[in-house]
Amino acid sequence: MATITDPIRQRTGPSPEALAQHYARIRALSEALAAPLSDADATAQSMPDASPAKWHLAHVSWFFETFVLRDHLPGYRLFDDRWPYLFNSYYEAEGPRHARPQRGLLTRPSLDEVLAYRAAVDAAMLDAMPMLAERCGELIELGLNHEQQHQELLLTDLKHLFACNPLGPAVWPAAPTLRSCADEPTPVRWREGPSGLVEIGDRGEGFAFDNERPVHKVHLPPFALADRLVTNGDWLRFIAEGGYATAGLWLSDGWAWVQREGVASPLHWRRADRGGWEQFSLSGWQPLDIAAPVAHISFYEADAFASWAGARLPTEQEWEAVARVQDPAGGVQLDAAGPVAPQVEALGEESPPLFGNVWQWTGSAYRPYPRFRAAPGAVGEYNGKFMSGQFVLKGGSCATPRGHVRASYRNFFYPQQRWQFTGLRLAKDL
Amino acid sequence: MATITDPIRQRTGPSPEALAQHYARIRALSEALAAPLSDADATAQSMPDASPAKWHLAHVSWFFETFVLRDHLPGYRLFDDRWPYLFNSYYEAEGPRHARPQRGLLTRPSLDEVLAYRAAVDAAMLDAMPMLAERCGELIELGLNHEQQHQELLLTDLKHLFACNPLGPAVWPAAPTLRSCADEPTPVRWREGPSGLVEIGDRGEGFAFDNERPVHKVHLPPFALADRLVTNGDWLRFIAEGGYATAGLWLSDGWAWVQREGVASPLHWRRADRGGWEQFSLSGWQPLDIAAPVAHISFYEADAFASWAGARLPTEQEWEAVARVQDPAGGVQLDAAGPVAPQVEALGEESPPLFGNVWQWTGSAYRPYPRFRAAPGAVGEYNGKFMSGQFVLKGGSCATPRGHVRASYRNFFYPQQRWQFTGLRLAKDL
Amino acid sequence: MATITDPIRQRTGPSPEALAQHYARIRALSEALAAPLSDADATAQSMPDASPAKWHLAHVSWFFETFVLRDHLPGYRLFDDRWPYLFNSYYEAEGPRHARPQRGLLTRPSLDEVLAYRAAVDAAMLDAMPMLAERCGELIELGLNHEQQHQELLLTDLKHLFACNPLGPAVWPAAPTLRSCADEPTPVRWREGPSGLVEIGDRGEGFAFDNERPVHKVHLPPFALADRLVTNGDWLRFIAEGGYATAGLWLSDGWAWVQREGVASPLHWRRADRGGWEQFSLSGWQPLDIAAPVAHISFYEADAFASWAGARLPTEQEWEAVARVQDPAGGVQLDAAGPVAPQVEALGEESPPLFGNVWQWTGSAYRPYPRFRAAPGAVGEYNGKFMSGQFVLKGGSCATPRGHVRASYRNFFYPQQRWQFTGLRLAKDL
Amino acid sequence: MATITDPIRQRTGPSPEALAQHYARIRALSEALAAPLSDADATAQSMPDASPAKWHLAHVSWFFETFVLRDHLPGYRLFDDRWPYLFNSYYEAEGPRHARPQRGLLTRPSLDEVLAYRAAVDAAMLDAMPMLAERCGELIELGLNHEQQHQELLLTDLKHLFACNPLGPAVWPAAPTLRSCADEPTPVRWREGPSGLVEIGDRGEGFAFDNERPVHKVHLPPFALADRLVTNGDWLRFIAEGGYATAGLWLSDGWAWVQREGVASPLHWRRADRGGWEQFSLSGWQPLDIAAPVAHISFYEADAFASWAGARLPTEQEWEAVARVQDPAGGVQLDAAGPVAPQVEALGEESPPLFGNVWQWTGSAYRPYPRFRAAPGAVGEYNGKFMSGQFVLKGGSCATPRGHVRASYRNFFYPQQRWQFTGLRLAKDL
Ligand SMILES: [Fe+3]
Ligand SMILES: [Fe+3]
Ligand SMILES: [Fe+3]
Ligand SMILES: [Fe+3]
Repeated sequence: MATITDPIRQRTGPSPEALAQHYARIRALSEALAAPLSDADATAQSMPDASPAKWHLAHVSWFFETFVLRDHLPGYRLFDDRWPYLFNSYYEAEGPRHARPQRGLLTRPSLDEVLAYRAAVDAAMLDAMPMLAERCGELIELGLNHEQQHQELLLTDLKHLFACNPLGPAVWPAAPTLRSCADEPTPVRWREGPSGLVEIGDRGEGFAFDNERPVHKVHLPPFALADRLVTNGDWLRFIAEGGYATAGLWLSDGWAWVQREGVASPLHWRRADRGGWEQFSLSGWQPLDIAAPVAHISFYEADAFASWAGARLPTEQEWEAVARVQDPAGGVQLDAAGPVAPQVEALGEESPPLFGNVWQWTGSAYRPYPRFRAAPGAVGEYNGKFMSGQFVLKGGSCATPRGHVRASYRNFFYPQQRWQFTGLRLAKDL
Repeated sequence: MATITDPIRQRTGPSPEALAQHYARIRALSEALAAPLSDADATAQSMPDASPAKWHLAHVSWFFETFVLRDHLPGYRLFDDRWPYLFNSYYEAEGPRHARPQRGLLTRPSLDEVLAYRAAVDAAMLDAMPMLAERCGELIELGLNHEQQHQELLLTDLKHLFACNPLGPAVWPAAPTLRSCADEPTPVRWREGPSGLVEIGDRGEGFAFDNERPVHKVHLPPFALADRLVTNGDWLRFIAEGGYATAGLWLSDGWAWVQREGVASPLHWRRADRGGWEQFSLSGWQPLDIAAPVAHISFYEADAFASWAGARLPTEQEWEAVARVQDPAGGVQLDAAGPVAPQVEALGEESPPLFGNVWQWTGSAYRPYPRFRAAPGAVGEYNGKFMSGQFVLKGGSCATPRGHVRASYRNFFYPQQRWQFTGLRLAKDL
Repeated sequence: MATITDPIRQRTGPSPEALAQHYARIRALSEALAAPLSDADATAQSMPDASPAKWHLAHVSWFFETFVLRDHLPGYRLFDDRWPYLFNSYYEAEGPRHARPQRGLLTRPSLDEVLAYRAAVDAAMLDAMPMLAERCGELIELGLNHEQQHQELLLTDLKHLFACNPLGPAVWPAAPTLRSCADEPTPVRWREGPSGLVEIGDRGEGFAFDNERPVHKVHLPPFALADRLVTNGDWLRFIAEGGYATAGLWLSDGWAWVQREGVASPLHWRRADRGGWEQFSLSGWQPLDIAAPVAHISFYEADAFASWAGARLPTEQEWEAVARVQDPAGGVQLDAAGPVAPQVEALGEESPPLFGNVWQWTGSAYRPYPRFRAAPGAVGEYNGKFMSGQFVLKGGSCATPRGHVRASYRNFFYPQQRWQFTGLRLAKDL
Repeated sequence: MATITDPIRQRTGPSPEALAQHYARIRALSEALAAPLSDADATAQSMPDASPAKWHLAHVSWFFETFVLRDHLPGYRLFDDRWPYLFNSYYEAEGPRHARPQRGLLTRPSLDEVLAYRAAVDAAMLDAMPMLAERCGELIELGLNHEQQHQELLLTDLKHLFACNPLGPAVWPAAPTLRSCADEPTPVRWREGPSGLVEIGDRGEGFAFDNERPVHKVHLPPFALADRLVTNGDWLRFIAEGGYATAGLWLSDGWAWVQREGVASPLHWRRADRGGWEQFSLSGWQPLDIAAPVAHISFYEADAFASWAGARLPTEQEWEAVARVQDPAGGVQLDAAGPVAPQVEALGEESPPLFGNVWQWTGSAYRPYPRFRAAPGAVGEYNGKFMSGQFVLKGGSCATPRGHVRASYRNFFYPQQRWQFTGLRLAKDL
């Protein structure tokens, strides 16, 4: 047991009943997200980075079945012996597995069979919850947080898939939105953050991933964060002023990426037939809302924009130091299945929350915290082995299940990836 | 009109009623082939060479809708304006189209919508058949032959897709087969073919593609064809004697292909857990039938095998000269939806038919016949533009709709392609 | 011995003295071609298809050392045991070898060392010539023809290398040329060729490669060849009329190549700063001579041009049937080291010779002649294993050593290759 | 002027005479390093990451010619107008340039011409030194440090080139070395480093690159560094215990790299014919010295080794905090042209110096220091634009010119690169 609970600190967990309710609610959201999908919609994979919706639904169940039921429920029999090979994502310790870029070829098992798998795992889990909650409550919590991460991926993967379809289908009808009528981007107001020695990392007051630990001190020079996210309107100016064609604004790798891929706008943008721009959403193609936060930009684009704006990206520590005092459940986050999209920030006297809307690229490479140790065993592969080549993002997005994210939360992606709801908030030295 | 009928010679066609019956029977077979498929099965694409079943079903209908209904039925309105972009295969003259390797991302339209499209096209076609049969009977015949080609592709593409699934699903349950009990491959008997000046190409007695024309003379030196196809048993000996590891047997391009891809057996073969080999079929994984004709080999493999056997591939003209006197509707060909597979040949006194079972690689590069001219317009792209880099195959296979193939029929694939039912028959000089 | 002499028919060879003179003259030309080169010039390799000049010089010597001296001169000791690994080109039977794309990394041995190698091989060859001429005269003849082939490659590889250098260096100063002043391309005159049954292939009256044999009959329908080569001026019209942008003119593979590589002119062309075109030559960049034959075109380009011109490529048999009565040593061919380039054809009453100037793409895939058999052993790899995927070219070029080519000679390249002096002559059906 | 001197802080520089002497000495070393090379040796490029020796010699001269002579010497005329295109490395602000992977095709200008270029630049520089030393002394210092970096690259690029040659040539004869006779690797002794708040970065007491500035505080938890480098003997144990085959030791990107490239040992290692290992050196292939520091490992290998050893990589700050009190000119570094190689460390009571022998991978991603600002203009591209995707290395190597490196020096390479003399020193938490 020690080997498993290691990565998820010892705390007093919720009661079995509370855990069961929590479990049921999170599991239900996954199915609600997949409800509008046909068997084919749930099966296709639009690129190696993405996974089919059906695969997400099965994989998160495999996680519970493997690390909870198989490992901790005596006498449990696998739903299907052949499925772990299909639904293991990347756990080397769990043996060989189906090649990631071929997930879209798994037309069998069908969506219905996967839903039956989910029902069977849920039945076993809930049935055994009194015992399980005690023996491996934190592992269950890990599994639920894992499922929430896949809920976000399910949405962004689906958006990517539908964007590849010339018919541009909608998953859900568009929500009525207040279209903004601002002519000019609102000027940025700079908010000074805490400097000097600050504490960073999870303090152990609730669930956290191993990569957020241990808490440790860092020394921050004086800095300020922008009180608002960069918007589509800001981005249009960057484009208009030749941002994508000015080598001097870009990191060397970023410039090579722009040239190689012919990048000239955020992902999911296209020029509209009668001028202007459109962006693809979970409700199909829509006119670009210039007051909304920009999304679907890569780290390279975020960094180039910051250079163009005479600013820089915040470090993950700066962001966390400021965010620590905020409610992480605030802002635009995922509450229920529907056409989530970044929303215009309300810019009044008070600054809008740092959380939600779009993941914010930081200038921090994703590396382990001092004294970080990955857990032994398969669960130790959860975060630690990805600590090279990626950058940290903070804050959650409109597609992050509310309650999932916190100030110490470290999301990470490669600098060219941009199919998540990724945006940016500027920072500067004081 | 002239521009369209050019490629398909002027003959007296069938009556409108006969044509309508013919049309209905062929169209029904496509749907029967797709009947066991889920929406997801019909949507996935396992490699750029293959297409989704749903795409085949729609594309062949687009062919009728475009070249018959749109072009020849005054007042016809397209089923959906956006679909030609999706279902045009490669006709440059018909404008831009969805990228081939992305066909598997078209989860919409659904299989049901595609079946509705088929029904609508059929209704319009049958409704207008009296007029259409007269105005463009040969174009309809072309469309029906086109659909038959896609029926074969649908089967081989589906086989490839299911072979990529670790669960190895079956499309249909296995047919009861007489498992052969031969210990030793039957020795080849050589049958001399006609030599000297022979006539090659379509004589205009029925439907033929433009690439089979015009009829012309070639001079053949004395030769003989094997009276039987190369079998799986023969192939096991080739493997056992190091065929895949002996550079001297291979064409230079073939040897590079073997090395690059790590090829060591025909496609769809795998070693069984308890020794021996299995082959993937439309009924899932089955023990290798050593007496059955070998299938799923590339031109390179066919050529290397022939070298190893001290023989050679027949030329397309040799094969045709021999086949001309046979009934092209004989042998193992597709009669109805089901788990088609190559069958053991009956080797009695008389030689088995040259037709059916597996397409036979010839040593002939696919190039135009003397005086060949592609038709103007989109239909002219049907065959002519593919006349480089490919090799001719003859005879049809177990997946070729019976009635589709003939002695002058020229199938063609790239030398490394082998997901069709491709095999070989040896030839030698006399 | 039989195994070696098999591919090169038994004839009465030249006297030892004549052979020695022939040997010395051909060997000397190789060195004359390399004389203007620095050690670095002779070492660099501009693409995997090309080889360094130094490598050519050594490889042709390795051929003599291996197949003549080592195999037939008792007691011969290799110049350097480690060099066969470096200078074997593609003979699998001779064991592993240095990877082709890495030939340009062989800065050692130096050019001087390679020249010393040549001198040592020459000394051994000439010393033993009386014995060798008798025992393996035809093998020596093969070696000399082999060296002539590499002389042409040395020139075209060098041209390609220097074209990659932004300084555009010249190997030799430009020869004074009569710049043509024609405004309009001269109209093509069509010359009917022999039809019906004709004999094709080498008749055994002198040296020939195995791929030219055996002589055999083919049946030719009535046809005509253009009396002149396609010129740069013709090509400018093809470009001006959108040839490179008209999908319908191209073979499918060719169109994909044009799109993928962004091809918009022959190789070694560039637009001049003050309008017009320049072409790279062995004397550096020069104004395009519009009356000279076009060179450095691929098979795909040749085929597209022919379609645009309403004509077609000749088959190799048509070309040979016409060329058979001509002197193969006529026309523009290589006589001595210098800045060879295609020359304007003299178009008087009589047609200019079919030979020389540029290799002429035919519409014939490079496949074995009926009853062709490659020799056993390494020498059998000379031609036979390349018989897939390539097309036949006829006639020799300005870089072909005079005396090397003949009517039955079959050169072959892949359809996209164009760094040789490749051009075309149109043909049509009568 | 401000724009140029920005990146290299204002200090009182050396006298014009001292600067001229310094200039002459450094320039002479480059030529001494290239002295054993033929024109071909100096021209070839073995991979896109490497450059030809001749190119290095010219490029560093272009740097002086461009940023000093052209920009600061009124009336200076370029040696050759066409050469900046050839010898600009990556300065976008200086316009387009020859493609990096094609540097090996520049057989012209010759090595002699490049040496003449060097002489001309030197003459102009030394002639104008009194004026230049005043106006742009720090720019000259930058140019000299730049040249020293290329001296190291020249050596490692040359080593890579010669390692690609099956003849395995030596640049210099092997130096007599004390072959160590240790049976067992010496156990590591751990030396505690300074913890708490420490100052990091260049303090402005001499030349430093912009990426070492500004000085700033970081907070370090207690840690220790190994008193010695990891040796070849240590590495043999890692191999023997399956290090390259154990997924769990590797970062995810590293494991993918090992699998994709088939990595099973450091670069420049091979198994000897009669057992044991050999390593390639500037004196050709030599028996592996098991007591010498391991070199030519990637970041991924370093990280996996540290995991296997139960330790970790030091951060760049930890390393610098310890190294700050040492003499950076100590240890095994480059003093003169010759067969440099890592040397066995003398492990007595006192720890050997942290500097020299091999560059030590740190666990720190190469990112800007707080308040870092790249200079405007081309010189600002020197370091800043490379700050993504790479890792920091510290300490210099046997190929680093003595006097070049210092504690705050930040070298950087991509995690898979290993053709430099890259090794590692372990660290651990206390
Ligand atoms: Fe997961
Ligand atoms: Fe089709
Ligand atoms: Fe050769
Ligand atoms: Fe440089």
